[in-house]
Order: sequence, then C-alpha cells, then structure tokens
Amino acid sequence: VICTADEWGIRSHGVARLRFYCEMLIQKRINPVARPHIVKSRPSLVLVDGDNGLGMLVGSFSNAIAIERAKETGIGWVHVINSNHFGIAGYYAVQGLKDNLIGIAMTNTPPLVAPFGGIERRLGTNPISMAFPAYKEPPVVIDLATSAISLGAVENSDREDDEVPPCCLIDASGAPSTTPRDLLEGGSLLPLGGARATGGHKGYCLASMVDLMCGVFPGASWGPFVPPFINQAPILENKVGRGIGHVFGAISTGAFEDPLVVQSRVDEWIYTMRNTKVSEWAGEVLVPGDPERRAAEDNARNGLALEVNVAEDLRRLGQEFGLKLEI
Amino acid sequence: VICTADEWGIRSHGVARLRFYCEMLIQKRINPVARPHIVKSRPSLVLVDGDNGLGMLVGSFSNAIAIERAKETGIGWVHVINSNHFGIAGYYAVQGLKDNLIGIAMTNTPPLVAPFGGIERRLGTNPISMAFPAYKEPPVVIDLATSAISLGAVENSDREDDEVPPCCLIDASGAPSTTPRDLLEGGSLLPLGGARATGGHKGYCLASMVDLMCGVFPGASWGPFVPPFINQAPILENKVGRGIGHVFGAISTGAFEDPLVVQSRVDEWIYTMRNTKVSEWAGEVLVPGDPERRAAEDNARNGLALEVNVAEDLRRLGQEFGLKLEI
Repeated sequence: VICTADEWGIRSHGVARLRFYCEMLIQKRINPVARPHIVKSRPSLVLVDGDNGLGMLVGSFSNAIAIERAKETGIGWVHVINSNHFGIAGYYAVQGLKDNLIGIAMTNTPPLVAPFGGIERRLGTNPISMAFPAYKEPPVVIDLATSAISLGAVENSDREDDEVPPCCLIDASGAPSTTPRDLLEGGSLLPLGGARATGGHKGYCLASMVDLMCGVFPGASWGPFVPPFINQAPILENKVGRGIGHVFGAISTGAFEDPLVVQSRVDEWIYTMRNTKVSEWAGEVLVPGDPERRAAEDNARNGLALEVNVAEDLRRLGQEFGLKLEI
Repeated sequence: VICTADEWGIRSHGVARLRFYCEMLIQKRINPVARPHIVKSRPSLVLVDGDNGLGMLVGSFSNAIAIERAKETGIGWVHVINSNHFGIAGYYAVQGLKDNLIGIAMTNTPPLVAPFGGIERRLGTNPISMAFPAYKEPPVVIDLATSAISLGAVENSDREDDEVPPCCLIDASGAPSTTPRDLLEGGSLLPLGGARATGGHKGYCLASMVDLMCGVFPGASWGPFVPPFINQAPILENKVGRGIGHVFGAISTGAFEDPLVVQSRVDEWIYTMRNTKVSEWAGEVLVPGDPERRAAEDNARNGLALEVNVAEDLRRLGQEFGLKLEI
C-alpha cells in the first residue's frame, strides 16, 4: 500500500511512513499478530473487527470481503472497527476494477480539523475514495481528504518556508493563519470550502459523514478520540470506541446490464470532461485519477527518486531489522 | 417535498418552484401518468425506471424501496433512471430515521458547474445528503451541493444587487467573477473548494462521483446531457442517457448491535461537536441539520411568510387549475 502511494506520487503516504508503522508494531501499539475477523455477516453488509492490526492488513482483508460480496450479490458494504491507519484510500477503491466493480473506501483519521465555527481539532482529514472502471480509457479514481488542504501540504510549505493559502488553517488561538508552523504548534486545519461564503460548512458536513459512517455507527473511535498513528504521539487517556474505522464498498457494474456498456459510458464521460473548453491558467481539464496515473507512468519510466533523508531512514530501519538494503 | 423545503428554510426549493413542475407536467415534458417500476432487483440492490415521472413521486417510490430492503437485509441501495428533479435531497435521507435507518440520497442535476480547470458547464450542483438517527438529540442531517455556492445563492445576490464571494463563479469567457449576472448570462459555478490551492479539484471530484453514480453507471443522463427542469429551457437536442438519475441508500443502525446503543453514540458525537471552543465570529458550533431544524421550529411557531410574488404566483396557479387558494 505504501509503495503504491509513492508510485502514484503521494509521497506523504509512502515509504517515508514505514518507520512509524514499524515503531507502532514494535511498541505493540499495533497488534503484530492480529487476526482480523468477521463479527456480523449478512449477504451484502458485514462488520469486521480488525483486532488492532496493521491498517493495510485489516483494510485489504476487509476490502476483499466487499469485493467478494459485490460479485455474489451486486453490492458489498463492509464496516471495520478496531483498525489502524490504512494508508491511501485510493489503493482499496481500485482493487475491484479488474472485476468490473465500482470501489468505495473511507476512513476516519486522528483529529486535525476544526468543525465549522470551532477552533479546536475535532475531526480527521477523513478521506473519501471512489473508483469507476472505464473501457478503453483508464479508470476514474477519486481520492480526496475532506479538509481544505492536507497535513502533507502544510508540512511541505513549512519545509520550503512558504505560506499556505488563506482559509485553510487557524492557529491555536483560533486566528486565521497562513503560517504552516501554526498548525504544527496546536492549530487546526479548516474543512474543505474554507469560509462560510465559500462553503466551509460543507467540508465540515463531509468530514462528519465519514466520521459517523466509519466511527460512530459501527463502534470504532471517532472525532477527537481517534488514536494517533505516529508512535511519538501520546496514547489517548480517554478511550472512546475501538480503534480507527473504515468503510469499504463495492458495486458490480454488471448488476443491471452488460458491464462493458457501462464502462463505455464511463469512457464517454471522460471524453466529455477532457473536451471542456480550458481556462487559461489550467492548460487542460483533467479527469480524477490523471495526476496519480501520470506520476506512476513517469516513475515506471524514470525510476522513483527517494529523498535523501527518506533513503537514509530506510537504510537504518533495514539495519535495525538485520536487512541489508541496496539503496 | 417542496413544502418541507419551505418549512426547513430552503426557499429556493419550495413552493416558489411549483409553477415549473406544473408547466413541465402540462407540457408533458414530465409524464403526468408515470408508473415508476423496478427493472432489476437483488435483495440489497435495485434499479428503478422512473417512467419520466415527477421526481418527487419517483424519488419517494424508490426511497421507500431502499428503506424496505434495509429493514430486510441491513442495507438497501437503489439506483434510479428516467426521473426528474426531485426537490431537496435531505427530504429522502430523513425518511428512514423513524425506522432506525441511516439514509442516503444523491441526484445529478442540469449542468451549471465547470469541471476544475474548465470554463464550460459540464456538471450539476449534484447534492449529497445523509441522515443519522440520534437518541435524545435531533438527528444529524447532512445535505450539501458539491458546488461552492448554489444557484439560489447567486439569484439572491442578484436580487439584492450584491456580489458573490471570490472563487465561486466564472463568466462566459471563463474569467473569475463576483457579479451574479455573469452566471445568469452563460457563466459557470465553480466546484466546492474554489481555486487549486484551496481544493477546487476536490469539489470537482465530488460532483463527478455523484454524476457517475447517479447518471453514468445506471444509464440515466449525465454531465451536460442532464435535461433542464425549468419549462422555459430548451429541450436538449443531443439526448444521452435517460432522464435525471438518483441514488437512495439506507443502512440499519440495528444491523450490528442494539440500534439505541448506536443512536446514543450519535448523541455523544453531537455533544462533542457542540462543545468545541468557538471562533469569535461564529458564536456557536452547529451540527449538520441545525439550521433547517431551527427554521422549521421557527416556522411552526410563527407561521411561514411567503414572499409576495410567490404568493401571487400560487394564487394564479390555483386559478388556472380551478382552485381557490385562501392566501
């Protein structure tokens, strides 16, 4: 999962995070011998207990169930509790494409976002992902955090001594800020949409939707009680709910008619979006999934250059585990 | 459905629109003797053909199927083609609350929004709605258009000679605009998130998701081919897909455990959001659904005042149909 993130150009979720996952396993904050299992099962609706396992393992296990049920019944819908950070949501949404399935993945994440009108972290960046198979064209792959900008983007701006755009961030006192450090020092991200006039209440609604579906409904942790996934972060004293929660959905494009007919329509949709008259600043109209696919093509052609500090860290990590890495 | 919109304070979708629906029926652009029916049925997944009926009728018919299937199987998921504008999405999402169901409603709508980087109308304001039952608290009701602002908001600003906020609108040439008339004269709305730096590509992804789920996948019209719902608008020459498409979903809060336990957790979530430290400008942190509930309480207490021109139009409409309205 984390290699796919690097391949797709989402470096914030790539091997740079391997150390955190390893440390969490070593400290047993993630259960290294977890056995995710089905708790409740109906033909199209399933609850999985992740046994506090690695999110990628629990996620792959649970997503496979959604796919299997969609093949059997047309739709598979799996709620997951007691899991951990599962990497990029898009990884799971694309798994059913080869079986002609629409894929859905959501997860709640540790609190970083203030609810609209609030000045404390109460919600995660709670991403939503969906993938639609096309016929001749590559699939449409949607994957978005419901905050205005991601933690990764703020960290990048901080490293480059840059400002972040207005309406994305508040400092610890609740004042609007464009200074990345203000987030790292106790501020909050704002929900997608920014101010009231531009729809900040909508981003709050979307983040809430993901939190209620992934956390509150199935019994995982939620809101400010979602556990951190970085080993340096203190363990929460107030435990509410069990671990991080995910939702995986799959719907068969063949449920109503020949899947190739459906997928040809997705092609037409893609052509229609691409053929929109283009804004001067944009150069072209992209289809969701284009940036990641292009990064992957570029990486396949030219190789994937790791940042020096990430490569160094991987080498050290290898040594700690008695592995020799040729990098 | 349209009375509920007025009751909830969403006047743009209220009885002010009754004339459009009536004219569409008189002109047979909407089938006045429609018989919506199930085309494909699996226990949790259904396709409905709306027979080009009134969206409220087709929507209510189809949503009731989602609710029924959720009671039987834990989850009901209904795609609808060949329908028309169904009013406010939230109306449908709340129908299952009394049966302890989470409700979901989406629809595509006629093109008004430019894809991110484009300058032509290619997508609708494509709303997403979800409702979650609480125990002691009122339900959480989410209902948002995936554009930065709604057509109704632009029309309001136009009437009041006001500007709209930046990053919400472009004129017909694609130039950013804050002048409401620019939309009415061939411009486009921008997706939720506005500019690239503040996540405009995310709003585009959300609108695409709704269009692909409601239109492209089940075979309804999609993107620029979604038919207009105002009778003065020309009928599209290029017909692609069949009518407007909706999705209705319902999930039983009792699927995994006692629904009252789940609903008590929703209460806790509500308290947690409300108790967030508040920004100076905000006064309080609301929970999704609060504004509509308060409007409804206020209207129940004080009565609902119609604008003079809306009341006049209703009276005329009544006369045309041989009804005497006491307003």
